[in-house]
Amino acid sequence: MTTSEALLEQLRAGERRLHDIGEDVSAATAADIRREFVAEETETAVSAIGEYGFDAEAANSNIENMIGAVQIPCGVAGPVLISGNYLDGKSYLPMATTEGALLASVNRGCSVISDAGGANVRVLKSGMARAPVFRVDDVAAVEALCEWVDSNEERLTSAAEGTTSHGEVLDITPYSVGRSVYLRFRYDTKDAMGMNMATIATEAACELIEAETTAELVALSGNLCTDKKPAAMNAIEGRGHSVTADITIPTAQLTERLHTTPAAFAEVNTRKNLVGSAKAGSLGFNAHVANVVAGIFLATGQDEAQVVESANAITTAEVRDNGLYLSVTLPSLEVGTVGGGTTLPMQSEALEMIGVKGGGDPPGTNAKGLAEAIAVGCLAGELSLIAALSSRHLSSAHTALGRE
Amino acid sequence: MTTSEALLEQLRAGERRLHDIGEDVSAATAADIRREFVAEETETAVSAIGEYGFDAEAANSNIENMIGAVQIPCGVAGPVLISGNYLDGKSYLPMATTEGALLASVNRGCSVISDAGGANVRVLKSGMARAPVFRVDDVAAVEALCEWVDSNEERLTSAAEGTTSHGEVLDITPYSVGRSVYLRFRYDTKDAMGMNMATIATEAACELIEAETTAELVALSGNLCTDKKPAAMNAIEGRGHSVTADITIPTAQLTERLHTTPAAFAEVNTRKNLVGSAKAGSLGFNAHVANVVAGIFLATGQDEAQVVESANAITTAEVRDNGLYLSVTLPSLEVGTVGGGTTLPMQSEALEMIGVKGGGDPPGTNAKGLAEAIAVGCLAGELSLIAALSSRHLSSAHTALGRE
Amino acid sequence: MTTSEALLEQLRAGERRLHDIGEDVSAATAADIRREFVAEETETAVSAIGEYGFDAEAANSNIENMIGAVQIPCGVAGPVLISGNYLDGKSYLPMATTEGALLASVNRGCSVISDAGGANVRVLKSGMARAPVFRVDDVAAVEALCEWVDSNEERLTSAAEGTTSHGEVLDITPYSVGRSVYLRFRYDTKDAMGMNMATIATEAACELIEAETTAELVALSGNLCTDKKPAAMNAIEGRGHSVTADITIPTAQLTERLHTTPAAFAEVNTRKNLVGSAKAGSLGFNAHVANVVAGIFLATGQDEAQVVESANAITTAEVRDNGLYLSVTLPSLEVGTVGGGTTLPMQSEALEMIGVKGGGDPPGTNAKGLAEAIAVGCLAGELSLIAALSSRHLSSAHTALGRE
Amino acid sequence: MTTSEALLEQLRAGERRLHDIGEDVSAATAADIRREFVAEETETAVSAIGEYGFDAEAANSNIENMIGAVQIPCGVAGPVLISGNYLDGKSYLPMATTEGALLASVNRGCSVISDAGGANVRVLKSGMARAPVFRVDDVAAVEALCEWVDSNEERLTSAAEGTTSHGEVLDITPYSVGRSVYLRFRYDTKDAMGMNMATIATEAACELIEAETTAELVALSGNLCTDKKPAAMNAIEGRGHSVTADITIPTAQLTERLHTTPAAFAEVNTRKNLVGSAKAGSLGFNAHVANVVAGIFLATGQDEAQVVESANAITTAEVRDNGLYLSVTLPSLEVGTVGGGTTLPMQSEALEMIGVKGGGDPPGTNAKGLAEAIAVGCLAGELSLIAALSSRHLSSAHTALGRE
Repeated sequence: MTTSEALLEQLRAGERRLHDIGEDVSAATAADIRREFVAEETETAVSAIGEYGFDAEAANSNIENMIGAVQIPCGVAGPVLISGNYLDGKSYLPMATTEGALLASVNRGCSVISDAGGANVRVLKSGMARAPVFRVDDVAAVEALCEWVDSNEERLTSAAEGTTSHGEVLDITPYSVGRSVYLRFRYDTKDAMGMNMATIATEAACELIEAETTAELVALSGNLCTDKKPAAMNAIEGRGHSVTADITIPTAQLTERLHTTPAAFAEVNTRKNLVGSAKAGSLGFNAHVANVVAGIFLATGQDEAQVVESANAITTAEVRDNGLYLSVTLPSLEVGTVGGGTTLPMQSEALEMIGVKGGGDPPGTNAKGLAEAIAVGCLAGELSLIAALSSRHLSSAHTALGRE
Repeated sequence: MTTSEALLEQLRAGERRLHDIGEDVSAATAADIRREFVAEETETAVSAIGEYGFDAEAANSNIENMIGAVQIPCGVAGPVLISGNYLDGKSYLPMATTEGALLASVNRGCSVISDAGGANVRVLKSGMARAPVFRVDDVAAVEALCEWVDSNEERLTSAAEGTTSHGEVLDITPYSVGRSVYLRFRYDTKDAMGMNMATIATEAACELIEAETTAELVALSGNLCTDKKPAAMNAIEGRGHSVTADITIPTAQLTERLHTTPAAFAEVNTRKNLVGSAKAGSLGFNAHVANVVAGIFLATGQDEAQVVESANAITTAEVRDNGLYLSVTLPSLEVGTVGGGTTLPMQSEALEMIGVKGGGDPPGTNAKGLAEAIAVGCLAGELSLIAALSSRHLSSAHTALGRE
Repeated sequence: MTTSEALLEQLRAGERRLHDIGEDVSAATAADIRREFVAEETETAVSAIGEYGFDAEAANSNIENMIGAVQIPCGVAGPVLISGNYLDGKSYLPMATTEGALLASVNRGCSVISDAGGANVRVLKSGMARAPVFRVDDVAAVEALCEWVDSNEERLTSAAEGTTSHGEVLDITPYSVGRSVYLRFRYDTKDAMGMNMATIATEAACELIEAETTAELVALSGNLCTDKKPAAMNAIEGRGHSVTADITIPTAQLTERLHTTPAAFAEVNTRKNLVGSAKAGSLGFNAHVANVVAGIFLATGQDEAQVVESANAITTAEVRDNGLYLSVTLPSLEVGTVGGGTTLPMQSEALEMIGVKGGGDPPGTNAKGLAEAIAVGCLAGELSLIAALSSRHLSSAHTALGRE
Repeated sequence: MTTSEALLEQLRAGERRLHDIGEDVSAATAADIRREFVAEETETAVSAIGEYGFDAEAANSNIENMIGAVQIPCGVAGPVLISGNYLDGKSYLPMATTEGALLASVNRGCSVISDAGGANVRVLKSGMARAPVFRVDDVAAVEALCEWVDSNEERLTSAAEGTTSHGEVLDITPYSVGRSVYLRFRYDTKDAMGMNMATIATEAACELIEAETTAELVALSGNLCTDKKPAAMNAIEGRGHSVTADITIPTAQLTERLHTTPAAFAEVNTRKNLVGSAKAGSLGFNAHVANVVAGIFLATGQDEAQVVESANAITTAEVRDNGLYLSVTLPSLEVGTVGGGTTLPMQSEALEMIGVKGGGDPPGTNAKGLAEAIAVGCLAGELSLIAALSSRHLSSAHTALGRE
């Protein structure tokens, strides 16, 4: 009996668990054994998942209980002309998705943007946040803790920065409700998305607080961060990168290429993205920014759960003398070009395609470049979909007229 | 010169565009040509993306401008004991992710849930929504349109249902702001996630409205649907499936397995997930539901952008006589087991593993089963992470005492 | 020693409390005694508060521990031409406020509205809501309770309606989070604002539920009502009266009377009321609707704390061929013309001025008339303030040009 | 014909308007004339409104088109023991309302609070905000404007502070969406609520910006202030005064006085105020804070429309070893003791009763004292109502048991 067969037998007998067989065999073999076991257990043929093209050992930091991989079709939109501080010129945007029409739509938007001279894009603010929650005795102690934090910001910064070679504390802001105190630490995490870095650094600062004050740490994350939940906190104060892309499309081009007018386009944006979202009690004032964010996130190895807040965006559209002004503002776009899924071979290639693979020079420039690319991709997506909604109406109106 | 070389040459010369070369060659060849071209253009070696294991032709409905695929490591959590209306017994939960520790965390939660007798789960409401926005002349016309819709609900239903063999109109609810009227159509879309079905059906109903009233359709989606944006509309009225999973964990087990107590666990939940989220102006009152939703979504071929609203959840935790009561409520979990990415080979295997591949018998039962599985996965994830936050505090308090 | 002196002495000695002296003397005398005592205690001369012009005895249902009254200056805006279902013709709008410029601003708006032919206004939905929260054992019991409620809607309606001679149950909608079940009862409360009626009726229905199911009532109000808190629930589903007022102002008139243009006005509305509020994470998309709601509420004896949700509004402004289209939509305007403060002499006069004093014929028409009046007042307020903001910009731009 | 008769005649003839007759006669006479005219026009007897006890001339800064006053019954709750930084000892809380049971409820809460040793209260942050919105050309110009503001903060501060003898600029924070730039100016406005001061000061700063940059002012208020609308901006960053009141009530006292237990009380708070509000998509996580805020606002001459954001609050309740911990946190309580309605005789007396009439020494201490008083009043109101909800359940449970 081979080691694999023995392990499989032990799994069947309930003597081993899925997660601990990796101790005895290679990561790839362990994945094979788990896959076979789960196939048996669920009476399923599991084979396609077993065909993957990356080093299982290296993926140990990406996943546990691995049985293989899923493949998501990957396409490319563009090129699109970008005028940013980190990207300047033509870019191709890799996107992974299973939703038909998305790539085509973004691609169409990219083409119109390029023909109109390209999109402007700026990263206006950056900083990854982590906000632990403490309990103190009462509101008098809340006041005292806030004062202590204010007086000891330097020591807290030292403690936090002592855990990281790259990260820098930007600021520490206290919030409180009753006797719960939330300290929102913001970090410059350079080219890393930075959630782990921020968590580890914040933990060190928390130890200092607990050692020197009466505050007790209740949870290292108190949801004012706010990670993986939609929150006005991020929409207002930002998280990751706050970035805006915009463009003015000449009227002639809008009409010829997208079969709509600045006024019709702006009307859709107002009634749908502004008033409709307001009525829906939404925190998202856009058409389908999440599609583009999710697509590029998957292609480039970002944390897919952070699509939630990264896709939070406001799209504005207005009639100008010379055409249509269109913008997309993403206050909390959380991206990195090092760590996480960025080192997997496909994802690494996708980053390289955009020109933002690995650490930037100077540090941080690659992550910001990626943020610029995504924002412009979103602009292209909004342009294309809103135009489609708008022109469908125009054409149906036209048809109606034609009917008579 | 082969056809491929010719096409590549035309791309280089700007005579062809990336999206139209599929007309002359097979989907797989087109992907190869595009990949080569983009590699040249971006001066990048793109090879890993080219190694994919599905039929490129079949993927035509999933993507345009395809250049290959990205692979996302896939693992499995479980088994977890589920007591639902559609799943009953042990289930394995496939998840794809690049974020280390996630699978391990959910797996630990699954184990504790099973040992505690399994999780309850119920789909309490189902319905996919699409809400077009119309413009009428003034508020008197708004009133008239709402009355017309009310009087003609049967005809609108007929028109909508005429476009689909499976979908059924559940209800049509009017909302208005000024002279913009939003009609929220809700459909039973059976095992399909149903966004396309709902859109096409709603379009037919819109034509009837435009033909018989003075209302003009401004956009087929007016954001009261609400698709791919976080919105109180979905949190309150539901979209896709509204599902709750819960369990009571005996105190002894919580202490032994997760090193915390019901009181300490509930405190973290209150200060972080309830009060913290309230202070953050968040629509999400949970710890990391998005991680689990995103992971199972990717593994099973769901629309990754719908993680935004599908991950919207409230987690509650309370001390009971016999232990800790824990629940996760997801009001707008949008899933399907047919269409979209579910037909790709890996994703299809993942669905089969859960026992919900393809159309259910009766229709709708597979999608609801998948909703149950995801909700329980979220419960496992919340259990594990909140316990970890909670016990870290307990242990650090312990260490502090030990120090003295 | 008179009775008054004796009571005062007892208060000083701590033998009596402020709230129980009303048992021995008339309401007016009790107020005098309390006022004197508090004046002593706080070393303050309290005299103006003692001069009030209503029957203290009658005010017993309005207040406890009365010491007198505060007077709020009351003015009148209008007349304004209204075209509603309940008001038709010229109306004067009484408003009480201490904030200078408010009356003048609304008055100006009324004048322009009248000159433009008057405002349209429609009450599109009505219903006062109360939502108790129950606890059941787990989500399986949640499902069972929801089914029970659905099957017993008629009995619940009977129980609720048995407590009131006027109120009618409109519908009962279940919502749940974990094992908490919220049942939102909606009532037609005719000319009463209806909060008390709804509470009493709902309590009767709750007793039936507790008697026949395992559900335990946790609180008669579970905040899904939602009373006196801003909530998307009300914004989406309405509470009290959902009402919209709108008008189209000819361009010439806008320019001449308000020194702005449709385009400049719409720009302010978009950047401030739509985009600004979106960025602020606000539930209110308007300029100063709360000013008008609060002013008319005070003048007409409404519940001043309900300004919170009653003032929740979306203002839209758009350029039309023939001028500026302006609308204000208030989804949860909670008003009554009977009960509460409406029977006080000044408040009663104010209601009479609008033509909506007391119960309407048929019942409900007066409350809806008041809702129409307030909505038009809000329209006037928005028109005037947004125009002022807009013209200030125009004039300053003009000045800037003039400077060069 | 007297002047009054002549003016009345001119009003009837449409030769004069209501607002301009004040030019010819005294304020009191003008009010009389307007009242008589409106009475005629609306065929109403308007007399009670005409009986007011303040100087009409002085009220010219409070209202236009005055016809008299409405009287709101005023009562007093307390005394309540307060331990704050600005109030220390026993306080009486004057409240004006027409809603029966409110005073009694708050009074009961005050009594229990005092018996439990008094409430702690702290003003943790103060600052009145005004946020104008500017338009620039595109996002590159947004970046440039933000940099300009950052570099010129001192000059902007000078310009703003040049308009006021008391106000001080605290900070200026830029936010942007597309090409709209919102600059949130925060001021220390001492004892004034400060909205006017902040507006005038900000206007001066805007002039500097328009003179030296390409930015064009669109509106002096861009809704990121956020005034008179519920907004996460205020809930997160504060406006006016951010204040928390809390207390721990011994179990015995809670049971004896309020017929509930810490656990039952906390359960109501969690299911209603936290989970219920979360489900409702609310920004208010409390029971009825608005009642208390509105009542004291009216009594003390505050801006009644600012009840909207001032009443925004989170109430927390937790079981502690020694009883029930209860807190109320109001992040945006906007109050003043000078200006506005505070100078009217009744309102002035009410302020004096609390000990915070007029300007404080040092400046700002009276406004903060008032904020402390209101917060403690809210704590009393929450204590009383939640206990009532909670005990009603306990008693009904008791009855149910007794039935068997």
